Amino acid sequence: MPAHYVYRTEFDVRDYELDSEGIVNNAIYLHYLEHTRHCFCREAGFSFEEMRKQGMLPVVNRVEIDYKVPLASGDVVDSRLWVEMKGPRFVFHQDLFNKHTGQLALRAVVSVVCLENGTLSRGETLASAFSEYLQ
Amino acid sequence: MPAHYVYRTEFDVRDYELDSEGIVNNAIYLHYLEHTRHCFCREAGFSFEEMRKQGMLPVVNRVEIDYKVPLASGDVVDSRLWVEMKGPRFVFHQDLFNKHTGQLALRAVVSVVCLENGTLSRGETLASAFSEYLQ
Amino acid sequence: MPAHYVYRTEFDVRDYELDSEGIVNNAIYLHYLEHTRHCFCREAGFSFEEMRKQGMLPVVNRVEIDYKVPLASGDVVDSRLWVEMKGPRFVFHQDLFNKHTGQLALRAVVSVVCLENGTLSRGETLASAFSEYLQ
Amino acid sequence: MPAHYVYRTEFDVRDYELDSEGIVNNAIYLHYLEHTRHCFCREAGFSFEEMRKQGMLPVVNRVEIDYKVPLASGDVVDSRLWVEMKGPRFVFHQDLFNKHTGQLALRAVVSVVCLENGTLSRGETLASAFSEYLQ
Repeated sequence: MPAHYVYRTEFDVRDYELDSEGIVNNAIYLHYLEHTRHCFCREAGFSFEEMRKQGMLPVVNRVEIDYKVPLASGDVVDSRLWVEMKGPRFVFHQDLFNKHTGQLALRAVVSVVCLENGTLSRGETLASAFSEYLQ
Repeated sequence: MPAHYVYRTEFDVRDYELDSEGIVNNAIYLHYLEHTRHCFCREAGFSFEEMRKQGMLPVVNRVEIDYKVPLASGDVVDSRLWVEMKGPRFVFHQDLFNKHTGQLALRAVVSVVCLENGTLSRGETLASAFSEYLQ
Repeated sequence: MPAHYVYRTEFDVRDYELDSEGIVNNAIYLHYLEHTRHCFCREAGFSFEEMRKQGMLPVVNRVEIDYKVPLASGDVVDSRLWVEMKGPRFVFHQDLFNKHTGQLALRAVVSVVCLENGTLSRGETLASAFSEYLQ
Repeated sequence: MPAHYVYRTEFDVRDYELDSEGIVNNAIYLHYLEHTRHCFCREAGFSFEEMRKQGMLPVVNRVEIDYKVPLASGDVVDSRLWVEMKGPRFVFHQDLFNKHTGQLALRAVVSVVCLENGTLSRGETLASAFSEYLQ
């Protein structure tokens, strides 16, 4: 299935994110992915702060990441995503590109479920809020 | 296939690893997993510093993580792993338990390949070094 | 004034805490210092979780750090502190040693004030809880 | 002495940088400060990668930080600095503002020395490279 990205943002690799090999540490990419999802939610009109106020808590329950080409000092991340629902899960398909080379740095699939007041929801509130972005 | 752990270590959750929900941030678990692999390699007699001196660079090329029960302040992580080879890949099966409750917090499969002098190796040097731990 | 340490703990340097120079990144030491203060509070019988439940929020308002000798992979941190009150401030004097060499790696002075229900307190509740540790 | 900023950059607070109080963790500000210094060096024409290639290693040897008003989710950091030499030390005066409110979030003084091929230098190479920025 071809990717139809619904959101895209850019940010710089910061030197403190490098590990002793001089490349971005593998855990930092999860920060990049989470940051992108949060930016997406804010732009889509439903920020994490707002969710929390309404008693909703999105929780990551599974990630799959394929590391392709490492990012390094001076690189700019071109971060893109599209999202679909599978039952109660929001499945984010997230690709990170090296902006300057155009190379795919990392491909991830991140499953998120939504707790409402502490129990697993069917995600209806979020599905409604994000309806125009869901594939 | 039942897990036959070949290595086990423990460490404390540190409060700065929590996110604004008061639970360990999802990226931090990758730090826990990496730290455990590095401790395992050191104990097995072949530390990352030593690998680097010999021109070897282990690189994570895929991770799959299932998040089960979040860890929080005051928790102690009981981190266990077993490892197998699949072609040139070292596949680490890593489980993180909450020591006090005994609950499985997270289950991960982490694939690592080894670069030798910049090119993908068949992993023979590492396979030999870790032969008694491989399943 | 000679340092009379009232608390001491140890922990390992983790390889992901290194930067691209192969030494612990300068920001990570603040994590070490915070982790030590939190462990101290828990051991002294008044953990951060407990403070929060009682409406208290300790906040760092100033740090001074002298970096002496960098820590690196495989090092064990021997972290020590003593604490005094100056007006409403709790002033933590924190030294990090390299356990194996005995060298002083870092010397820090960290000032903390305590908010109670959102406003600056005179720190009496904490001063009472920690009275036997204050110098 | 009034501050004559010679460099200014902006970046977003990322939600994973918050701690369990919902404010930016105190250690993260050191990342912000380091990132700003690295961006400054790159813009001034002498990046850290370049320094390293020439055998130079800038090392932080002292920081003083006054925390004023915490940053939180959604905030944009307006980061400014000016720099002076004191003997062999480059003294960076760094202020972080909350872009939207204009409030000073943090004021820092960061001393950096430069190792050249492993020994403390008088900083002449860097002083020459950054001469037009030094006060």
